[in-house]
Amino acid sequence: MSKDMKVAVFGGGSWATAIVKMLSENLKEIGWYMRNESVIEHLKDHGHNPNYLSSVEFHTDQLILTSDINAMVDYADYLIFVIPSAFVESELKKIESPLKGKIIFSAIKGIVPESSLIVGDHFLTHYQIPFEDIGVITGPCHAEEVALERLSYLTIACADESKAEKLADALSSSYIRCSTSDDIIGTEYAAMLKNIYAIAAGIAHGLGYGDNFQSVLMSNAIREMKRYVKKVHKMKRDINGSAYLGDLLVTGYSIFSRNRMFGNMIGKGHTVKSAMMEMNMVAEGYYATKSAYALNELKKNNKAKTPIINAVHGILYDSKNPKKVFKKLSEKLN
Amino acid sequence: MSKDMKVAVFGGGSWATAIVKMLSENLKEIGWYMRNESVIEHLKDHGHNPNYLSSVEFHTDQLILTSDINAMVDYADYLIFVIPSAFVESELKKIESPLKGKIIFSAIKGIVPESSLIVGDHFLTHYQIPFEDIGVITGPCHAEEVALERLSYLTIACADESKAEKLADALSSSYIRCSTSDDIIGTEYAAMLKNIYAIAAGIAHGLGYGDNFQSVLMSNAIREMKRYVKKVHKMKRDINGSAYLGDLLVTGYSIFSRNRMFGNMIGKGHTVKSAMMEMNMVAEGYYATKSAYALNELKKNNKAKTPIINAVHGILYDSKNPKKVFKKLSEKLN
Repeated sequence: MSKDMKVAVFGGGSWATAIVKMLSENLKEIGWYMRNESVIEHLKDHGHNPNYLSSVEFHTDQLILTSDINAMVDYADYLIFVIPSAFVESELKKIESPLKGKIIFSAIKGIVPESSLIVGDHFLTHYQIPFEDIGVITGPCHAEEVALERLSYLTIACADESKAEKLADALSSSYIRCSTSDDIIGTEYAAMLKNIYAIAAGIAHGLGYGDNFQSVLMSNAIREMKRYVKKVHKMKRDINGSAYLGDLLVTGYSIFSRNRMFGNMIGKGHTVKSAMMEMNMVAEGYYATKSAYALNELKKNNKAKTPIINAVHGILYDSKNPKKVFKKLSEKLN
Repeated sequence: MSKDMKVAVFGGGSWATAIVKMLSENLKEIGWYMRNESVIEHLKDHGHNPNYLSSVEFHTDQLILTSDINAMVDYADYLIFVIPSAFVESELKKIESPLKGKIIFSAIKGIVPESSLIVGDHFLTHYQIPFEDIGVITGPCHAEEVALERLSYLTIACADESKAEKLADALSSSYIRCSTSDDIIGTEYAAMLKNIYAIAAGIAHGLGYGDNFQSVLMSNAIREMKRYVKKVHKMKRDINGSAYLGDLLVTGYSIFSRNRMFGNMIGKGHTVKSAMMEMNMVAEGYYATKSAYALNELKKNNKAKTPIINAVHGILYDSKNPKKVFKKLSEKLN
C-alpha cells in the first residue's frame, strides 16, 4: 500500500463515515462524495458528519469533499460505493466519467431494486466493469463500534486478490483487522441474505419467541445460507467464516440492527407499511427478501430449500399472518 | 411412548426441574430424586421447587419424590442425570442397586472432575454401562424459558436411536420439539466445549470488546469446536446443527449464562478465586477448560488447533493476564 493511493468513498451514511475514518488512519488524502452539500459544508466547518457517527473527528485537510460525483470518479483509482441499494442506481446514472480501469468496491449490503442484482453483478452487467476489477467489503462490523475504535474484522473480497490486499492494507489499523477472499459472489450474497434472517429474528422476538428459539433460528439460517449461496455460486468456502456466519450473528443478535428492528415491529403487529413509516426508512432486508425469493423461484427444479426466506417473504409481500407463518416455520426447523 | 414409561430425574437444579416439567406433560408419573429433603418437603406441600423455576407448578400426585437414590434407581427404566458434573461422582458412589439393564441419559454439560471424562464415557468406563444404553439430552435450551413454555428445541442422542426416540416422545410437547441423533459423543463434547467459549465471550465483554468482536469470536469458536470434536470422534455431522452451533449461541450470547458471567468478571479484573466466591458457585466451563485442554495436549502431534481454549486455559489456570492473552488471541482470529 502506498499512502498516496487514490481512494474515494461514495455515500454519506454511517457505514460510509466509518470507512472514511478507517482510511484516514493510513492515507494522505481520501476522496469523499456525498449528495448533500450542507453536510459537506458542516464537515468542512466542524470536522464531523452531523448526521452519522458525529463523534468521529476528521482532519478536514485530509478530506477531498465534493458533491460532484464525476469529479470524484475522475479523482480516484479505487471507488468504494456505500450508498443504500435503493438509491445506488439513481446515483450511478449521474456518472459520465469513464469507469474503465477503475477498481470498484461495494460496501452495500443489498440488491439493486432496478436490476434485482447484487451490486457486483450490477456493475458487471450494466456498467461492463470486468469481474476482476470488482470487489466487496463485508463485515461483521457495526459502524458505531468503528467510531468507538473497538476491534473489528473486515473481509475484503475480489477475484483478483492482489487488489483486495491493497485495499485491505489501506483499511487496516490498530482496531481494524482485514482478511481477503476471492469469494466475491458468496460474500456479497451472504451480506444480503443476513438482513433477511435479521428480519426473521426480529419477527420472532416481536411474536414473543425467546432466546432458545432464536439460537435454533440462527442455526437453521446459516445452513439455509450455505444451501442458497452454493446454488448461486458453487465453490469451496467455509460458511462459518466471519464474512458469513460472523456477519449473520452480528446482525441477527443486534438490537441496533435496523432489519431486526423492522422485523420486531412486524412481529408486534405493525403492518409492513406502518413499520416503514414508523422507522422513517426502508430496511435493506425488505428488498433483499423480494429479490432473494424471486431468484430462488426462478431456479424451478433446482431451488435451494429456504423455509426462512419463504416465511419472511410471505409475511412482507403476501400479507400472511406472522404468527401463523412462524408457527409453521417452527415445525420445519430442527 | 407409553404414558406408563418409568423415567426418573436425578437432580434438584433448574435444568432438572425443567426436565421434570417436560415429562409431566406426558407421563402418568415421574420419579424425581434429590438430595435435599427439605426441598422435597416443600415440593410436596406447595407443588413447586422453592429454589429453582419456582413459578412452575407441579401436580404432586404425579411425582414420586425421594432422597433415596437407590430406591429411585430401582424404580426407573430411564435414568436422567442432571447433577452438576462436580458432584456427579459423589452421588453415583451412593448407588448400590444394579444399573444393569437401565438406560442412562445425561443432561449434564460437563466433565466429571474425578475421571476427566464426559459423563457418557464416565458411565461407560466406570460403571460398565453398554454404549447403546447411554444417551445425552442437549439444548439449546435455557431452563428459564421452559418454565415460561417458550418454544424450545432439544436433541436426544443415543447410539441406539430407538431409545432416543422413546425419550424424545416423553419430552415433547406444544413448547418442546425434540430431534434425535446418534452422535452421542459429539453432542456431549459440544455441550461441554460451549461453556468454555461462553467464558471466552464473557472475558471479551469484560475487557471491553464489542459486538463486532463477539461475532468473530463465535465464528471462530464453532470452527474450533468442529476441529476439536472431529479429533475426538470422527463421524459425519453438521456442526451447524442446533445441538452444536445452536447450543453455542444460546450460551455465548446469553447474559444469563453463568459461564459468560464468570468470564465477564475475570475480564473486568476479578481473580479466578474472587469471581468464584462472588458467584457463590463454580461455572461448569471452569472444569471443562482444564479437561478439554489436557485432553487435547495428550494428543501431542495430533492436537486440534484450539487458540480459544488455550487462551481461556492460560487465564484460568496459569494466571495469565486476560488483556494480554486476548490481544494475542485477537491476532489469531479471522
